[in-house]
Amino acid sequence: MTGQPRTQLSRRGLLGGGAAVAGVAGAFAVGRTTAHADEGATVATGGRSTTYAFRGAHQAGIVTPAQDRLHFAAFDVLTDSRDELVDLLQRWTLAAEQMTAGEPAGTGAIDGDVRLPPDDTGEALDLPASGLTLTFGFGPSLFRDAEGRDRFGLADRQPEALRDLPHFPGDILDPARSGGDLCIQACADDPQVAVHAVRNLARLGFGTVSVRWSQLGFGRTSTTSTSQSTPRNLFGFKDGTANVKAEETAALDEHVWVGDDDPRAGWLVGGSYLVARRINMTIEVWDRQPLGDQEAFVGRTKGTGAPLSGGEEMSEPDFDMPGSNDQPVIATDAHVRVVHPDVHGGARMLRRGYNFVDGSNALGGLDAGLFFIAYVRDPGTHFVPVQLAMSKSDALVEYLEFTGSALFAVPPGVGPGEHVGQSLFA
Amino acid sequence: MTGQPRTQLSRRGLLGGGAAVAGVAGAFAVGRTTAHADEGATVATGGRSTTYAFRGAHQAGIVTPAQDRLHFAAFDVLTDSRDELVDLLQRWTLAAEQMTAGEPAGTGAIDGDVRLPPDDTGEALDLPASGLTLTFGFGPSLFRDAEGRDRFGLADRQPEALRDLPHFPGDILDPARSGGDLCIQACADDPQVAVHAVRNLARLGFGTVSVRWSQLGFGRTSTTSTSQSTPRNLFGFKDGTANVKAEETAALDEHVWVGDDDPRAGWLVGGSYLVARRINMTIEVWDRQPLGDQEAFVGRTKGTGAPLSGGEEMSEPDFDMPGSNDQPVIATDAHVRVVHPDVHGGARMLRRGYNFVDGSNALGGLDAGLFFIAYVRDPGTHFVPVQLAMSKSDALVEYLEFTGSALFAVPPGVGPGEHVGQSLFA
Repeated sequence: MTGQPRTQLSRRGLLGGGAAVAGVAGAFAVGRTTAHADEGATVATGGRSTTYAFRGAHQAGIVTPAQDRLHFAAFDVLTDSRDELVDLLQRWTLAAEQMTAGEPAGTGAIDGDVRLPPDDTGEALDLPASGLTLTFGFGPSLFRDAEGRDRFGLADRQPEALRDLPHFPGDILDPARSGGDLCIQACADDPQVAVHAVRNLARLGFGTVSVRWSQLGFGRTSTTSTSQSTPRNLFGFKDGTANVKAEETAALDEHVWVGDDDPRAGWLVGGSYLVARRINMTIEVWDRQPLGDQEAFVGRTKGTGAPLSGGEEMSEPDFDMPGSNDQPVIATDAHVRVVHPDVHGGARMLRRGYNFVDGSNALGGLDAGLFFIAYVRDPGTHFVPVQLAMSKSDALVEYLEFTGSALFAVPPGVGPGEHVGQSLFA
Repeated sequence: MTGQPRTQLSRRGLLGGGAAVAGVAGAFAVGRTTAHADEGATVATGGRSTTYAFRGAHQAGIVTPAQDRLHFAAFDVLTDSRDELVDLLQRWTLAAEQMTAGEPAGTGAIDGDVRLPPDDTGEALDLPASGLTLTFGFGPSLFRDAEGRDRFGLADRQPEALRDLPHFPGDILDPARSGGDLCIQACADDPQVAVHAVRNLARLGFGTVSVRWSQLGFGRTSTTSTSQSTPRNLFGFKDGTANVKAEETAALDEHVWVGDDDPRAGWLVGGSYLVARRINMTIEVWDRQPLGDQEAFVGRTKGTGAPLSGGEEMSEPDFDMPGSNDQPVIATDAHVRVVHPDVHGGARMLRRGYNFVDGSNALGGLDAGLFFIAYVRDPGTHFVPVQLAMSKSDALVEYLEFTGSALFAVPPGVGPGEHVGQSLFA
């Protein structure tokens, strides 16, 4: 995570002529990827011109400092051909590396052959890289279809932990917002850059994949680096205070990166599992709760985010501190207590969620909430027990509706000359 | 539009104590609004800390330099009581002035009485004003219901021009995304600030109004000031090049601000009409069109935005320049020609639209397009003929679906001691 500036190629600079574009494509194929392959998340900072290297030991977009905006898309694979699927992953790799560098997708840019559709759709031409990261994942249904059939000769490599999540009490999942064979998480500090990336990758997949569902998020709800301040969710509370952060390398190995304990999943070592949950908040009901109740439900103050047992935002909560009426200060059903690692064998998640508003609902309120994303080493130990505990005894759950759900295996980073997920198909 | 800095009150600074909050509320009631009432769109610039004065001769959010993000909401009025409606407008005025200044809504802030719900929902507490503007409008149905009944004693003040827009060829309008008694346009450079504002105004209206529909936009598609660069729409083309801009004061009087020609609408002088149209783009089909065809449909180059007749982005198109096959270089069905003021009696609009993506559609593509907003002096002369011409002969229409539509009268600015729309109810 060393911050090592490099020259920023702006898309605007490429508008001048096709020769410059061809030059970039050539550099991609030979020079640049090799030069940066060992540097992990090489960063050129400077506001919107921030760029993150696409290749490295881990995929970018996990421990990368959480960008402000999200476009997440899940895809169904339409083809039965493994070769066609691998070909798409190769083309996605090329385009992802170009776009995360702030370049247009493809080689025929906007002033190319007028007889052909432009390779790039154009809406980000004047915009810098904006910290774009693209993170790819594989869903359980890619390995076996609903009837259990091996779709692409991958069934014997399906990790034990990559199974559909169980039904949780309170789930009212919309199938049209759940599941998916593939996923792409696009994060950027400019939403137009994130949208552009998903659109161009979907376009490259035309005929091979189709978008199953997609979700925009407008505000990050987590910090993935100690350099970031803690944002607020739509309950108005700081969220992600106790998140696993990029600087905690030992915790990342323990809680986020997949190890070598599953012989079927050697290809996933150094990757992670991505849990996505679309969580609607009944915000109009929440907003009518007294401040004291809101804080009791969360277990923290609304202003500073400090635990109700005292201190500052980053202080550890004291769950034993006695309050009034023989109850602890932090209630037994307070969110911060129910999900705390101490009651889950020390399990922590790297959360990377976003606030969303998708218009209005039938009740004259906002269709709004949290698009929860978490990266974990094993969903069976690091997510399912926590979600079950929430469903059972978390005071917040009364104000939540779980409307979408998906699980993906996120392969490790893309090495020099490799394509996304190459270790799975090798 | 003079840029006159003033002290920026951050919401964060208000967290310290209730006394400070009460002080701000006092200043609102007595001092600050008066001090700034004559200054129009007083601006304190500086990135996210930009603030625009809420009070002035015109409402902010029209000629204000178009901010990056939008949350637009239309409301149904639930009450039959004119007094209750006016009371809401008074409370909206108070909260709007607070939030556009970067302050929380209401007086009991986050560290207020724990026995009461907080006045402010909290998710923007750590965020600066972010250039927030809030612009209010009144729909035709506020004056008369579907049966023609006078709802609030306002029927004799309904402007002639404030009628439901006609059905246009190609309209496939969703009633749940159309119309509305009231509207609020929230624009800001941080989407969380825009969402927070709409949410808190909706909350203040609980029981009196309900959200009929709402729309987020992630990327501006227009420039309303010569200081801004031209952004791109989801066709990948620069949009809004020939927009009416804040610096064109004579053009604003001619095309945007309502004059005194309608005796029923004296209350609207200095206001405007807001036309909202949700325009889905069939972007997957568009993306398969050759570059030359895309440019022919628009009448401009995709790279620089110059007219196909030559020059630079800001050059006037030459519609008479001959091309090949006895056709003009700019085709007869090119968008730039069909909507050009020269063929509409010189009528121009002040456009203020935003790109949107609302997840995916049933075809495995993106539910995406342009949320078109235009401010005009008279929709009958400045919008309807242009839309009819587009429906009839614009090559772009093949790639558009009009899925939502609404018209609102936007009253003039709010003077000292006044509430939003006071001239209508006086």
